Amino acid sequence: MTRERLYLFDTTLRDGQQTHGVDFRTADKQRLAAALDGLGIDYVEGGWPGANPTDSEFFAQAPALGHATLTAFGMTKRAGRSAENDDVLAAVTNAGTPAVCLVGKTHDFHVTTALGVSLEENLANIRESVAHLTALGREALFDAEHFFDGYKANPGYALQCLAAARDAGARWVVLCDTNGGTLPAEIGAITRAVIAAGIPGDRLGIHTHNDTENAVAGALAAVDAGARQVQGTLNGLGERCGNANLTSLIPTLLLKEPYASRFETGVTREGLGRLRAASRLLDEILNRVPNRHAPYVGASAFAHKAGLHASAILKDPTTYEHVAPEVVGNERIIPMSNQAGQSNLRRRLAEAGIAVEKGDPALARILEEVKAREEAGFAYDSARASFELLARATLGRLPRFFDVERYRVVIERRRNASGEMVTLSEAVVVVHVEGEKVMSVSDSLDPATHEDQGPVNALSAALTKDLGRYQAYLEDMRLVDFKVRIINSGTEAITRVLLDSEDGRGQRWSTVGVSANIVDASFQAVADAVLWKLIRDGAPKAGE
Amino acid sequence: MTRERLYLFDTTLRDGQQTHGVDFRTADKQRLAAALDGLGIDYVEGGWPGANPTDSEFFAQAPALGHATLTAFGMTKRAGRSAENDDVLAAVTNAGTPAVCLVGKTHDFHVTTALGVSLEENLANIRESVAHLTALGREALFDAEHFFDGYKANPGYALQCLAAARDAGARWVVLCDTNGGTLPAEIGAITRAVIAAGIPGDRLGIHTHNDTENAVAGALAAVDAGARQVQGTLNGLGERCGNANLTSLIPTLLLKEPYASRFETGVTREGLGRLRAASRLLDEILNRVPNRHAPYVGASAFAHKAGLHASAILKDPTTYEHVAPEVVGNERIIPMSNQAGQSNLRRRLAEAGIAVEKGDPALARILEEVKAREEAGFAYDSARASFELLARATLGRLPRFFDVERYRVVIERRRNASGEMVTLSEAVVVVHVEGEKVMSVSDSLDPATHEDQGPVNALSAALTKDLGRYQAYLEDMRLVDFKVRIINSGTEAITRVLLDSEDGRGQRWSTVGVSANIVDASFQAVADAVLWKLIRDGAPKAGE
Repeated sequence: MTRERLYLFDTTLRDGQQTHGVDFRTADKQRLAAALDGLGIDYVEGGWPGANPTDSEFFAQAPALGHATLTAFGMTKRAGRSAENDDVLAAVTNAGTPAVCLVGKTHDFHVTTALGVSLEENLANIRESVAHLTALGREALFDAEHFFDGYKANPGYALQCLAAARDAGARWVVLCDTNGGTLPAEIGAITRAVIAAGIPGDRLGIHTHNDTENAVAGALAAVDAGARQVQGTLNGLGERCGNANLTSLIPTLLLKEPYASRFETGVTREGLGRLRAASRLLDEILNRVPNRHAPYVGASAFAHKAGLHASAILKDPTTYEHVAPEVVGNERIIPMSNQAGQSNLRRRLAEAGIAVEKGDPALARILEEVKAREEAGFAYDSARASFELLARATLGRLPRFFDVERYRVVIERRRNASGEMVTLSEAVVVVHVEGEKVMSVSDSLDPATHEDQGPVNALSAALTKDLGRYQAYLEDMRLVDFKVRIINSGTEAITRVLLDSEDGRGQRWSTVGVSANIVDASFQAVADAVLWKLIRDGAPKAGE
Repeated sequence: MTRERLYLFDTTLRDGQQTHGVDFRTADKQRLAAALDGLGIDYVEGGWPGANPTDSEFFAQAPALGHATLTAFGMTKRAGRSAENDDVLAAVTNAGTPAVCLVGKTHDFHVTTALGVSLEENLANIRESVAHLTALGREALFDAEHFFDGYKANPGYALQCLAAARDAGARWVVLCDTNGGTLPAEIGAITRAVIAAGIPGDRLGIHTHNDTENAVAGALAAVDAGARQVQGTLNGLGERCGNANLTSLIPTLLLKEPYASRFETGVTREGLGRLRAASRLLDEILNRVPNRHAPYVGASAFAHKAGLHASAILKDPTTYEHVAPEVVGNERIIPMSNQAGQSNLRRRLAEAGIAVEKGDPALARILEEVKAREEAGFAYDSARASFELLARATLGRLPRFFDVERYRVVIERRRNASGEMVTLSEAVVVVHVEGEKVMSVSDSLDPATHEDQGPVNALSAALTKDLGRYQAYLEDMRLVDFKVRIINSGTEAITRVLLDSEDGRGQRWSTVGVSANIVDASFQAVADAVLWKLIRDGAPKAGE
């Protein structure tokens, strides 16, 4: 059976950019365009040339795309001038992209009130703008703004707008649910009516928003009805509640029925395997914490409960998983603290270079230790480096490099010589290395700004200031992230600190500390980070 | 036209609790149950009595609910014993709730492999367990685990399981898409088939998961097909990608067609107005950052772009909004137009006993100050007491009671006389009260257990140890909760501390502090808490 072609259109760089707090730089847009192209997206909408300096610069330095068609966005020409003489439209076409998408009105109320032009003038604007694009040899797309509300208010006029674009040669007419208020069943019914009225499904696109949490379902309903282009953004980025989430739509369309056998897309299996990485790239550019619970690509998307579920999963993953995590570049997480976890534990230890024989009773001891400490607040799923150290300690394979005798931190707030209130932290750490006692002191001031960075930085700086023969191993190590969580509340609060460290070789590792005292919890995590680095880099043990 | 009754079933406290990292305390569950009841939810599933200490304690101290039916969760009896003699089931029924929901298998493959019992034994387990509940006078619900996969594998057997529950007297049979893999169109088709096979729609519930980002749409598809109970959680909380999000479903079912005219629910318009607050309560309990982009209740859900959109919105909000934000307790955000903000601010200040004339230019200054400080990391929605203090300061109406000259905290970890490693914190605070300098020192040891409670407790104890004439106002005040969040990451981390305080009169108030130094951020929040208490209790100003 020949499969029908379904096209994917990404608007992360245009509609996604409209989001509050999102401000891509040109280099960000170039990296994202390359990642979208690497997935196999058919159209990458890069922005609105002329609307702002970043968008103009991006098109001026347009990346070379292998598969995707770079698309510029703009609006249909204004009334009272020709398409050739509209300077806003000229800025869009001058970007020189092979495809151009123009938004126009199809809701009679918006035409007469917001634009203040006659219904006939609006039809002419659509017709002449699209004809202008095709005359320039560009692939033309027409974005029908507020289409569903427009259709409900005046179906005849809304359809006339679409027909004007179609007849002028638009490759695609895109039905936009601009305010996100149309529910999937209605999107399906109206899409069917549009096709019945003579706009072919293979020239019809769908653009939904998530204001009722139905953007993905709305897009699927339009595909079910016959639309063959799906618009959306990575991670559902977009104003208000976001756009349709391509990160969810792509695996559904490729992996799940009735879509998988019916459609051919530009995204190959190989591209699909890069989906999680593309999702994380956007988070990294936006400096956002990745959503653990994101469908398909979230860290928890394939995390299973302990007990019955986990043991069933080990026997046959299809019992509790609707797709295989590796297909989208994700991984399965089976909690360690369960009976079925021993083989999983051995695999994890092997990955960390710790070989343990099958059936070694130490495996059960490690699982018990992990469980007991997780009940006390430790989080070893997040802190893999501390997990390795705990396993080594239980196995009697934890090398000793140094011993911490004591530490002290002083945090003081008072007036400085200029009479300003300032805060200063100072830490003293006393360690024993190779039988030598070493005392180190450090403050918390950033060397560049001279601003206080708090007690944890001071402690970390003091501990890593002089570790004798081990010092060389720590020169390229730095703290990159720090998360604090209060586990119980009130007077019995326990603090959990998760720390991410990085070194010059690009290694990144996470450690955890737990204490009623936030400074002590932080110190534990810092000490673990140092210890892990020494082991991983093969530092000689004390006495070696 | 008579409207049909549609029932809402919340499982935040049971299925939501299964989420990685979610660990409700009994008091949290009680607060959430009350909030759900206040919305008008019909069933509040509180947990699994006997499965863990928190759930057992919650049912032992069950809150009195006005509208909602408190429901206990459990599983159908095991094979080889009677329902009366199954101790797991007994723990569930002994909780004494008016309704009990039991999960059971309906997928033949799971019955024979996971349970290892015959298909007939499984039917008997369902039948006898449900009959046992009805014999005890309880309302019985049957959760059909993996129903959709089971129906696809063996429709006859899956339907037999439902019929067994129905015939044994189950008020509700709930179709569960346990692994979240069934798409809405298929959920709709299978639900219709179930009804056609003799399970009446008004005894049929739907329970979906968000693994394809279609949980909300799947629930709506089942309602379209005839199901009359919808299960979900606040904010879509749940394992993997979460459960169906009631925070999105409720407004859709109440406000949007075809549902609004067709159905009657337990949620009134008044309850709906508390939806945003209920959503935030859960975030607060979980110490999560509220999702700005959440449909209906997110801070950005009704945030409009500047320019054309915003001016159209001012003329007629229906042009760009599919529902009105205030209906769900949310508010519209229009950039560069704070007319709506000022009247809202005046109302808030009036609630705090701070009267400001309409049009007072101080209102604009307060909004600017709030905005600037929120950009720096403060969170005034959560810290109303600090917001009041900020407004008073801007208005020049902040009384001075005392001045903090300086403070110092020392945190030390070392061996004690018995050779054990111990941590100790000590704080010194120097304040001026009525021209007198007062120095106070306190350590961090819990008077009862002699355990270290960390630097924030030591600082708080020192500050409130001797405030001269104000001391009497502080005797009944205590710290009850403490939340820490790192706002930026890496070396430029800013720490936000939110503090909840309580007094003997049952007042509870929240304050905030922000600093690169976690101890300093905590001190700011403690100082604000003291200041608010003195103002609220009418302490005389300095010199009065």
